Amino acid sequence: MATVDRWQLPDGVEEVLPAQALVVERLRRQLLDLYRSWGYQLVIPPLMEFTESLLIGLGSDLDLLTFRMTDQLSGRTLGIRADITPQVARIDAHSLAETGITRLCYAGSTLHTRPQSLLASRSPIQVGAELYGDDTLAADVEVIRLMLATLDTVGMHEMTLDLGHVGVYEAVLANAGLDGEREATVFDALQRKSRPDLELALADMDPAIIRLITGLLDLHGDESVLDGARATFAEAVPEALAAVDALQQVAAAIRRLRPGLTIYFDLAELRGYHYHTGIVFAAYVPDHGQALANGGRYNNVGKVFSRARPATGFATDLKALMTLFSVTQIERGAISAPDLDTPGLVARVGELRAAGEVVISCLSGSPDPRCDRQLVEVDNEWLLQPLQS
Amino acid sequence: MATVDRWQLPDGVEEVLPAQALVVERLRRQLLDLYRSWGYQLVIPPLMEFTESLLIGLGSDLDLLTFRMTDQLSGRTLGIRADITPQVARIDAHSLAETGITRLCYAGSTLHTRPQSLLASRSPIQVGAELYGDDTLAADVEVIRLMLATLDTVGMHEMTLDLGHVGVYEAVLANAGLDGEREATVFDALQRKSRPDLELALADMDPAIIRLITGLLDLHGDESVLDGARATFAEAVPEALAAVDALQQVAAAIRRLRPGLTIYFDLAELRGYHYHTGIVFAAYVPDHGQALANGGRYNNVGKVFSRARPATGFATDLKALMTLFSVTQIERGAISAPDLDTPGLVARVGELRAAGEVVISCLSGSPDPRCDRQLVEVDNEWLLQPLQS
Repeated sequence: MATVDRWQLPDGVEEVLPAQALVVERLRRQLLDLYRSWGYQLVIPPLMEFTESLLIGLGSDLDLLTFRMTDQLSGRTLGIRADITPQVARIDAHSLAETGITRLCYAGSTLHTRPQSLLASRSPIQVGAELYGDDTLAADVEVIRLMLATLDTVGMHEMTLDLGHVGVYEAVLANAGLDGEREATVFDALQRKSRPDLELALADMDPAIIRLITGLLDLHGDESVLDGARATFAEAVPEALAAVDALQQVAAAIRRLRPGLTIYFDLAELRGYHYHTGIVFAAYVPDHGQALANGGRYNNVGKVFSRARPATGFATDLKALMTLFSVTQIERGAISAPDLDTPGLVARVGELRAAGEVVISCLSGSPDPRCDRQLVEVDNEWLLQPLQS
Repeated sequence: MATVDRWQLPDGVEEVLPAQALVVERLRRQLLDLYRSWGYQLVIPPLMEFTESLLIGLGSDLDLLTFRMTDQLSGRTLGIRADITPQVARIDAHSLAETGITRLCYAGSTLHTRPQSLLASRSPIQVGAELYGDDTLAADVEVIRLMLATLDTVGMHEMTLDLGHVGVYEAVLANAGLDGEREATVFDALQRKSRPDLELALADMDPAIIRLITGLLDLHGDESVLDGARATFAEAVPEALAAVDALQQVAAAIRRLRPGLTIYFDLAELRGYHYHTGIVFAAYVPDHGQALANGGRYNNVGKVFSRARPATGFATDLKALMTLFSVTQIERGAISAPDLDTPGLVARVGELRAAGEVVISCLSGSPDPRCDRQLVEVDNEWLLQPLQS
């Protein structure tokens, strides 16, 4: 690699420079403060763990996203976390091991071997909140509300909430009696919403079953979708109705506090199915194709750490949120101070900094371009005077 | 791995649970706010880069500490950063490419293949500040002051400042005319302060040169060390005197603002020599064997990114700072609220949270143990009442 290219960053890996870093840091603090005010306690899981702890049967997606390397101390395989949720589930199940409800939140970098979508980062800064120990819909409603409050905090008021429930798919599939291999093909085709692939995978099945499964692709839209689902499943797959009822209840609870919110139902939404066990949800804003935040219920993930716990939560990516803010100019308003040890000056600089001002010592050359004021000594007093740039 | 062991973390890799995570987050904010108030702008370099960008001839230490893996997208070797300073140097040299003084700061996780000392973490949270574009001692003094202010901020007032200057060692070695291999052996022995190894490495040399090099091992202590160094080098290695003078000047500048500070000089201090080019410094507190923060001048690191820049800076580890605080009990003082949609309650909860209170919905079971107050409806008003735990 020539010297001139050594600054190159890998595809999908970005650095954040001062103007945007200030935005990221502000968002990070606002969100962690928000979660704290709702009772979610911060935890800081490590960047790497043994792959046995990170990859706990949550689906091959996570597996393929995870970077691996050998631990020189133990000879075992280490992984860089591609998702923080399994780590927090481990902390809830093993490290904290509380019996009641545990609310946890986190903010940290993750790495992906490949981007999850065309424009996605391979080094997102994942921020999220998780609620353990409560299996009622009230817990799902709380985390959905907190997810929406997350977007409020960053100034995104015009949003759409997507709701789904993996119980619908599970009931339909159990009813169809597919074998493991075919189920994987069907799952994959549904996840990609590919009708031709789905029809191909089901070609030799009973037409009624084909209709039921491909019918999932049409079950998206406003609340009338739920009535459509009831009509479709009432006789053929009554087991699916509980999931439909749950969706209706959750939507009603969210609407009571946000009457104007657009809610979009999607019964073929399977993102992270192998991980999720109930309601799944995502928040979208206009002109941004990817979900800005998403989550769902994922009971029993703690089981591999010897304690199954009800769980629901959501996550967002600070780098994705950052792109919604246009930041171009440098921050101005700093104060330039001469680089002197004079006690009066040192005291004044200390006071100004403690009061939240940015005071930059002028070591050599001209004052920092961010300065619009300077400290000048007049009659033994250090006064602030305007500084022409 | 049995289910029961999957919670195990690798040696030297730790998670931070709620009580301590609160301390880490508070420290992180205090330090970034401090650096900002001195004019240091936050940057967020990525967790991974190509190894060609991370390992830029800064010594084999960093090389051995860095985890590597293959990039599936490019086929090239990626590294997880073991140190953030080279990344910030790249940002200064290439991404920002300013001509005057650039002040940058950062906070982020790093990973080490093995612990740097017996009790060190392999996943430190490195926080630091770097000053580019000024080659005067005033810049070194500014970053040393900021390093000391860092320890003030975390409440560590009784500290010792260690000062060294790699120019002394460089001049003595240039004078001795050692070849590359022997220089490496000597460097290693000096770094470990091993007199026998040093004598062995130099056995066949001129006794005067042996005396000069092994003499470095005795040049540590209070300011009288500088006089000793002058006496030793005045005739034999006059090139070393400029470094001794620089140390005296820097110490005097630091003392003017902190007359009571203990300053310890160590002319054999070579930590990170291949990286550093001038003054090196570290801060120690009682009962903590490792330096809590350290740094030094490292001019020209930007050269491999096609722009050599004067540079000086320091770093600390939030996880090491965290251990200085004893945190045992859970935070109390939260408010329990019934899980109801009543508009009056929702508004009251929102106000309390916005005012900085932690309000936890009581979804099922008894209130969260952190709650010592609860919201109770009395005559259509939601009042705070004490809650017995």
